[in-house]
Amino acid sequence: MHNEHFYTLTASCPDQVGIIAHVSGFIAEHGGWILESSYHSDNDSDSNANRYFMRMEIRAASLSCGIEEFCRKFAPLAARLEMDWQVTDSAVKKRVVVLVSKQEHCLYDLLARWQAKELNIEIPCVISNHETFRGFVEWHGIPFHHVPVTLDNKPAAYAEVARLFQEARGDCMVLARYMQIIPPELCAAYPGRILNIHHSFLPSFVGAKPYHQAYQRGVKLIGATCHFVTPELDQGPIIEQDVIRIDHSDSVEDMVRYGKDIEKAVLARGLRYFLEDRVLLHGNKTVVFR
Amino acid sequence: MHNEHFYTLTASCPDQVGIIAHVSGFIAEHGGWILESSYHSDNDSDSNANRYFMRMEIRAASLSCGIEEFCRKFAPLAARLEMDWQVTDSAVKKRVVVLVSKQEHCLYDLLARWQAKELNIEIPCVISNHETFRGFVEWHGIPFHHVPVTLDNKPAAYAEVARLFQEARGDCMVLARYMQIIPPELCAAYPGRILNIHHSFLPSFVGAKPYHQAYQRGVKLIGATCHFVTPELDQGPIIEQDVIRIDHSDSVEDMVRYGKDIEKAVLARGLRYFLEDRVLLHGNKTVVFR
Amino acid sequence: MHNEHFYTLTASCPDQVGIIAHVSGFIAEHGGWILESSYHSDNDSDSNANRYFMRMEIRAASLSCGIEEFCRKFAPLAARLEMDWQVTDSAVKKRVVVLVSKQEHCLYDLLARWQAKELNIEIPCVISNHETFRGFVEWHGIPFHHVPVTLDNKPAAYAEVARLFQEARGDCMVLARYMQIIPPELCAAYPGRILNIHHSFLPSFVGAKPYHQAYQRGVKLIGATCHFVTPELDQGPIIEQDVIRIDHSDSVEDMVRYGKDIEKAVLARGLRYFLEDRVLLHGNKTVVFR
Amino acid sequence: MHNEHFYTLTASCPDQVGIIAHVSGFIAEHGGWILESSYHSDNDSDSNANRYFMRMEIRAASLSCGIEEFCRKFAPLAARLEMDWQVTDSAVKKRVVVLVSKQEHCLYDLLARWQAKELNIEIPCVISNHETFRGFVEWHGIPFHHVPVTLDNKPAAYAEVARLFQEARGDCMVLARYMQIIPPELCAAYPGRILNIHHSFLPSFVGAKPYHQAYQRGVKLIGATCHFVTPELDQGPIIEQDVIRIDHSDSVEDMVRYGKDIEKAVLARGLRYFLEDRVLLHGNKTVVFR
Repeated sequence: MHNEHFYTLTASCPDQVGIIAHVSGFIAEHGGWILESSYHSDNDSDSNANRYFMRMEIRAASLSCGIEEFCRKFAPLAARLEMDWQVTDSAVKKRVVVLVSKQEHCLYDLLARWQAKELNIEIPCVISNHETFRGFVEWHGIPFHHVPVTLDNKPAAYAEVARLFQEARGDCMVLARYMQIIPPELCAAYPGRILNIHHSFLPSFVGAKPYHQAYQRGVKLIGATCHFVTPELDQGPIIEQDVIRIDHSDSVEDMVRYGKDIEKAVLARGLRYFLEDRVLLHGNKTVVFR
Repeated sequence: MHNEHFYTLTASCPDQVGIIAHVSGFIAEHGGWILESSYHSDNDSDSNANRYFMRMEIRAASLSCGIEEFCRKFAPLAARLEMDWQVTDSAVKKRVVVLVSKQEHCLYDLLARWQAKELNIEIPCVISNHETFRGFVEWHGIPFHHVPVTLDNKPAAYAEVARLFQEARGDCMVLARYMQIIPPELCAAYPGRILNIHHSFLPSFVGAKPYHQAYQRGVKLIGATCHFVTPELDQGPIIEQDVIRIDHSDSVEDMVRYGKDIEKAVLARGLRYFLEDRVLLHGNKTVVFR
Repeated sequence: MHNEHFYTLTASCPDQVGIIAHVSGFIAEHGGWILESSYHSDNDSDSNANRYFMRMEIRAASLSCGIEEFCRKFAPLAARLEMDWQVTDSAVKKRVVVLVSKQEHCLYDLLARWQAKELNIEIPCVISNHETFRGFVEWHGIPFHHVPVTLDNKPAAYAEVARLFQEARGDCMVLARYMQIIPPELCAAYPGRILNIHHSFLPSFVGAKPYHQAYQRGVKLIGATCHFVTPELDQGPIIEQDVIRIDHSDSVEDMVRYGKDIEKAVLARGLRYFLEDRVLLHGNKTVVFR
Repeated sequence: MHNEHFYTLTASCPDQVGIIAHVSGFIAEHGGWILESSYHSDNDSDSNANRYFMRMEIRAASLSCGIEEFCRKFAPLAARLEMDWQVTDSAVKKRVVVLVSKQEHCLYDLLARWQAKELNIEIPCVISNHETFRGFVEWHGIPFHHVPVTLDNKPAAYAEVARLFQEARGDCMVLARYMQIIPPELCAAYPGRILNIHHSFLPSFVGAKPYHQAYQRGVKLIGATCHFVTPELDQGPIIEQDVIRIDHSDSVEDMVRYGKDIEKAVLARGLRYFLEDRVLLHGNKTVVFR
């Protein structure tokens, strides 16, 4: 990490000889100084079908042209390589819409990081199904929207969430222990843009009350999982996971408490990878260039 | 830990006021110096049904009587408290029968610990369904029994395993990546005495090829589980678990390799807890007094 | 952990036969139900000089007498055993005075835990050498005191800190990245009551700029240490430590950022152990009954 | 990781625009399929003095020429970029000479990995200052050399070690808890080729009896460090480190025992990184492309 102004090129394409040469050659022709670069070739299948992933940070000041011109010139090469690609600008903060319920640990953690400028983001608003954190959020100068969710109003409620997200020009939605199931339409509308923190080490203990399930099974470690939300509950691509040790003396309440520490840490790491364009989707899996 | 001669009393009983007082009072009356003691009250249910677990190490030289007399005198108190209990003697090495197949990592690890006297055990024999490690085992002066297991001979093969275990007066059987499913009758014959190392972080990825399952799901950590073998495959009480970080660049072969390091470490820790009488069964869970 | 009303007895004394029997016998005589108990015998030296440590949680409702009478009756036994001892009441919240400077991570983390009632404490006030967090702290309804510290006013400044701490009837002082060296007189006045979080894995990288030192040395893990403050800088008894992995690609700024996550986690764990009377001093070391 | 035949190009040079483009362009011209590639730019100092590090795995079968011709053609480019560079061949096993004393844990661990072909190495011989492991080593078909080291014979003994290493055409020397201080001349003769496992989390507890030092200081984690040996004792570039949690109940003997598990794991990881040409020296630090 560094504090310079840079552009991040991320791309994936069918693997073949010479991809790095082509792309790095193009960048060098335009004077581009590469600050960091990562590559991954998916070696699963036979080589004809391998997929190639890359991420490059280019110092903005070194480029002989602006970002638009760079992209315009890069497009034909990308097309020839059949690339999915994008270029982001470190000077443009990503806009993160946070959804919370009544638990504070993830919200406090995210706002502390935002406040300390540790996360290079805007938080255009916080949305909650409860009023609990209005004061806390507004004290930070961030708009707070209360969108109650009941058994009867779900379609209307999530239409409102979607409207607020669009109005906020959000880049991603972070479910910071939101405790509500996002309807499939909303998931489908923003693939790879809704991040959730699940309070178990998936795929163990899918669904409700994972700590109760963990307690019943007598596991010796519990965990948390940051993943993209997809229409299939708790089945989306995993971005980051971690665990913490427990033992026989820990009650479900203890697990909940320990779990919070893992949840906020895993969410913060997963979100940072996402914000720095380090997470590339590969089917139902992720490539994470840490 | 220490190198003194000591007795280990382990017990569980219905919880009530005064258990520690009764037991420690009895020990003090006989001059017993307590080197280490651990207690656990299961707080789950309502207090009338709580269960209490304890483990105490008593310096042998401090007792005013021998172990047999100590046990004889303790029995009435234990009966009054409705205890399941036992006393073991640190001077009597436990007899560990090791079952292996064709993978060396757990076997080498166990024999290195035995050789270094790090584990206070006898290994009366190693049993394998392959000849692979005969030379290595016999070089250490340990008898090696080849008991082939085929689709047709299972009942006979496991009858032979049971016979060898009895002949060896084994205290426990360690499946050091034995790769065969122990038949229910054998599991049932030795409850809490057969330890397995499973190459996944249970309850994730039960059954065959857990690393392939982990690869497909795209998890960011893989693990291993040391558990008691019960007739239900991979469902026995968990003794110890651990995990290791992986990422998108790791193939199934990499996972297998990393996994070996976790497997042998988790097996060694779980076995040590068992050998030191630190593992008490509680239904399908364990209390582990580390 | 549990949510019952209980008393916690902690004690240390010269080791001898029968301590548990005496103490647990006394508790049982008064009807005391023991919820959790931990013991440690320091085996270092020859047995005559061994020291014994204990911690017991007793359900308040089970005792046949109140806490004052319990203590009065226990005193003669404690005297006979030459005990250092205390009994605390879970219904009486400890009063934690927090000292901060300009970094938010530990402060936000502590207030989130306080807000969520995860820590059973009062925060009578926050003291800082900067005005930075006045608004944030006061929003939580907690008094904020600005006590500037300059090269010239140190004695007066720390006299004011001591006065505020006394006025607040503080049980402990938490230096939540306070970034100032506490003068020896203040350390000496509150032994075992001032907790600091040091941003290195002590004893590595004592003193200023530990992350710079770690970077220069090229270590592969960095850490944090929660310890009691003593007159000797960074030499006090260690309560808790942890580490996080770094690599060659991490700059000092990255280390500072990762370090924050470890610092707040280690401080929160260390503080919890202290608040639950799990930390017993043993010379310049600690016994921590987790 | 994969099982293909490949060449590994590692290089470092002053940083400038276009390095990846030049090198990957050269490889692509010769048909080279890049299996894995890693880059690191040292961002410490001002950019004019930055140093650039790279590692690329090239599928052997994809190259239009042999390795010698590839190197001959690459040399002028490398010279123009002022590179330190080398190309290794995955089909040529590195030759690892192991030095041991009387502790088995690292030796058993390395031989198990060698036996399982988990490490792609030859072990031309084991050298020891004791006869302890002659039988074990020779059983594996590996020559064993006993070179006693006394206060009087050090120069002669290490001359013999150097002679055996040369005779064995060793690529590296692994001190698998060798417990002797290698004389500066030998260190200087093989820079970056002698790996040691130190039984502490350096720079803590330099020198003798680190576990005793850790016990005295009351740390809550102990560790191990794999590093290159240099003439300054315990000051060489660090390759890998790890830690394990301990507490007040652990004696020095317990620490020694736990430490062994960390020592062998850290040594195995560090050695693997070295064998796969993932470790590049950068002054007294390392770049490790994991």
